[in-house]
Amino acid sequence: MTMVDSATMKAALREYVEAFNAGDAARVCALYADHATVEDPVGAPRVEGRAAIEAFYAGAIKTGARLALVAPPRGSHGRSASITFQVQVTMNGHAVKIDVTDVMTFDDSGKIERMQAFWAPDDVHPA
Amino acid sequence: MTMVDSATMKAALREYVEAFNAGDAARVCALYADHATVEDPVGAPRVEGRAAIEAFYAGAIKTGARLALVAPPRGSHGRSASITFQVQVTMNGHAVKIDVTDVMTFDDSGKIERMQAFWAPDDVHPA
Repeated sequence: MTMVDSATMKAALREYVEAFNAGDAARVCALYADHATVEDPVGAPRVEGRAAIEAFYAGAIKTGARLALVAPPRGSHGRSASITFQVQVTMNGHAVKIDVTDVMTFDDSGKIERMQAFWAPDDVHPA
Repeated sequence: MTMVDSATMKAALREYVEAFNAGDAARVCALYADHATVEDPVGAPRVEGRAAIEAFYAGAIKTGARLALVAPPRGSHGRSASITFQVQVTMNGHAVKIDVTDVMTFDDSGKIERMQAFWAPDDVHPA
């Protein structure tokens, strides 16, 4: 059985942050499988498939949001890995920081097939 | 529908860390539902049910491991929340730090019914 390894998953997560902060939605989406799903935040309806995911990231990047890692990525003994960061963004004219942890699940080819973003309304703080 | 809220989940996660560091396996296990599962690390066989989970935490606490939070807990808009921390422990005579993120899923009564610990062999570092 081929399975993505921890180093590959962590490299993808670091590239995710860099690509997002470079404002390059296409580069972010290149990390995703065609059939991927994005649940951001967990508990909200999922964004499904490449076209919807591209629109999601284009919108997120348009806000001017920046991601700041607060700890190294974590791997697992399976197909999933996580990153913990703050989103720095202006909402309704106010600078805020949002505490977030993302869990990404990868397919055999090293593409992200599932993204889950953990943050709640009480994770949004004045910057 | 009753659903656990973010503040309740985060309080449980802080209590989890405090109870673990107090060396009190029963106090940790009191946070779990009877039918809970623990997957630590993700990709390893799951520990299922109260008796097995109690044995798991008794063993973990016996190692002298300590948990050090590195960021505030994250909630979600659903039933899950996460904590990101380092485990400080001695393995085979060597002090190590293990980078970990846990995702906990809660039932309606606020008990943890699923725990997933994200860490890989390359998340274990010399202390």
